[in-house]
Amino acid sequence: MSRPVKIAAAQVGAIDITTPRETVLNRLLSLLESGASQSVRLVVFPEIALTTFFPRYLLADDQLSSFFETSSPLTSPSTAPLFTLAHKAQIDIVLGFAERTDDGKGFNTCIYYSATLNQIINKYRKVHLPGTVEPFQDPEAINQLEKRYFTPGDLGFKAFRAPGLIPGALKQGDVQRARAAGEQVKTDGKGDPIVGMLICNDRRWPEAWRVLTLQGAELVVFGYNTGANMAHLWGSKAMSPEEAEREALFHSRLVQQANSYQNACWSVSSARCGADDGKYDLIAGSAIVSPEGHVVAEAKTKGDELVVAEIDLGECRQGKEKA
Amino acid sequence: MSRPVKIAAAQVGAIDITTPRETVLNRLLSLLESGASQSVRLVVFPEIALTTFFPRYLLADDQLSSFFETSSPLTSPSTAPLFTLAHKAQIDIVLGFAERTDDGKGFNTCIYYSATLNQIINKYRKVHLPGTVEPFQDPEAINQLEKRYFTPGDLGFKAFRAPGLIPGALKQGDVQRARAAGEQVKTDGKGDPIVGMLICNDRRWPEAWRVLTLQGAELVVFGYNTGANMAHLWGSKAMSPEEAEREALFHSRLVQQANSYQNACWSVSSARCGADDGKYDLIAGSAIVSPEGHVVAEAKTKGDELVVAEIDLGECRQGKEKA
Repeated sequence: MSRPVKIAAAQVGAIDITTPRETVLNRLLSLLESGASQSVRLVVFPEIALTTFFPRYLLADDQLSSFFETSSPLTSPSTAPLFTLAHKAQIDIVLGFAERTDDGKGFNTCIYYSATLNQIINKYRKVHLPGTVEPFQDPEAINQLEKRYFTPGDLGFKAFRAPGLIPGALKQGDVQRARAAGEQVKTDGKGDPIVGMLICNDRRWPEAWRVLTLQGAELVVFGYNTGANMAHLWGSKAMSPEEAEREALFHSRLVQQANSYQNACWSVSSARCGADDGKYDLIAGSAIVSPEGHVVAEAKTKGDELVVAEIDLGECRQGKEKA
Repeated sequence: MSRPVKIAAAQVGAIDITTPRETVLNRLLSLLESGASQSVRLVVFPEIALTTFFPRYLLADDQLSSFFETSSPLTSPSTAPLFTLAHKAQIDIVLGFAERTDDGKGFNTCIYYSATLNQIINKYRKVHLPGTVEPFQDPEAINQLEKRYFTPGDLGFKAFRAPGLIPGALKQGDVQRARAAGEQVKTDGKGDPIVGMLICNDRRWPEAWRVLTLQGAELVVFGYNTGANMAHLWGSKAMSPEEAEREALFHSRLVQQANSYQNACWSVSSARCGADDGKYDLIAGSAIVSPEGHVVAEAKTKGDELVVAEIDLGECRQGKEKA
């Protein structure tokens, strides 16, 4: 059974530490508008999409707070216009940002916004936090202080239905009514699409994909900020910056392709990329990958770019049903 | 800490249903001799290495029995010369074969022979049996009757130490004595190499690799018989024989590279390949893959070929120790 849907990764290029929030918001809006003009139904924005990747800096609390969201992205002035446009264009959104809870905890978070329901229907908090708590001694080393600024995610890996994302899908209410009337209703591959979210480093851990797809996920989405020259974290092997970037891209692509294939799911990866502050290089390589592990669309640039594909969720069934 | 060891996959080309056991044995002996001449310390033979891949035929019990081993490969006339040579050359062996137990069960099995101890130190029975119990209705379809002929493996996924495989490793006896004397001895990455075995389809299941490597496996080895033109099993997508072979090779390589990387282990894959009976094509592509997911050696042919690499087990440490 064919279940086509047009989706996109909204890759976001360099954001400096001094880049105003409004500038970033306008760039995200442009990407979303591009999606609307192409009749895209889902746009996946990167991890920590609203600011530069601040865990590379050692920041005092008062500086740090400006990078965190304390209210719902639906109502916050720095993000609300995104959802207004998404609702108007009927585009679902995945958006990553740093979240500060009322009790003061920091999380590396993403949310799923359903345009059909005009509400946030799922939230995920990153579990596999990379990097260190303390900065490196070497002043030349690029820090990765996620373990300092964030608490490991406490929401588990929960797959969920995205109502209305594809037309013609069985509705949960109809299924419940039919079942209450004693009918047998098989929803596998017929209901609203089942989606799972990961963030960045989570993608390298096969359990994360497995837990989502054992719940039936047909589409796994994730944003990332991945250093292009993190060779100093990789032990003794000396690499040129070009080799290190190739290696980082190779690993990112390898795990996306293999886990899509091994779990018979589509996947979307969305990069924050380019050279932040003109010097902190992040890999690009946003991609849409099929349940057979093939790249069907990928970023051509290291900057703002919408990577679009019409995919068929029906292609998951063979791999999910084969014994 | 560097822990170098020279290892090999012994890829085995076409074996027909009529090929005598002795012919196969002589070919395996030639591959082992080639390993000896190159000072290889471990040779990994394929899955079901002693006969053609018989699960493609619907066989009556009396025909079937000739494909199964009922006694230990160490003493069976059709395999004993392999171990004589391995002991003389001090080469460890992994060998796959169909096993019939005393109570009549069939298993798709492989064993690890330690040349240092001159004994079989580990046995694995394939867990993920592909294919069907009943043959296809279509007389043109190639059957895959593993579910008919084999019982799912009942030995779990057990990693084990390979004593003497590399020189200079801490010995278990020494470690026990030192600990009894109250000393603290850290064996991670210093003891005899930790090995895990899988068979064919197991390689596509990330849990299989994970269970082995959570026990510390530094080297995962597996043989396979993988149809080069099994498109009829893959649902509706029509593929030419060339496309189907490319796709099968792509998937095989993808999961070996990704699982080696995700689990920070070396891996060896060893193919039974070529056109059995002149028409049943199996993919080749035997390969040795690093803990960073890179192919360091691979088969150049679709026939008998020893694929050799000197690897450094020490390269697993960075990935295994990084938090």
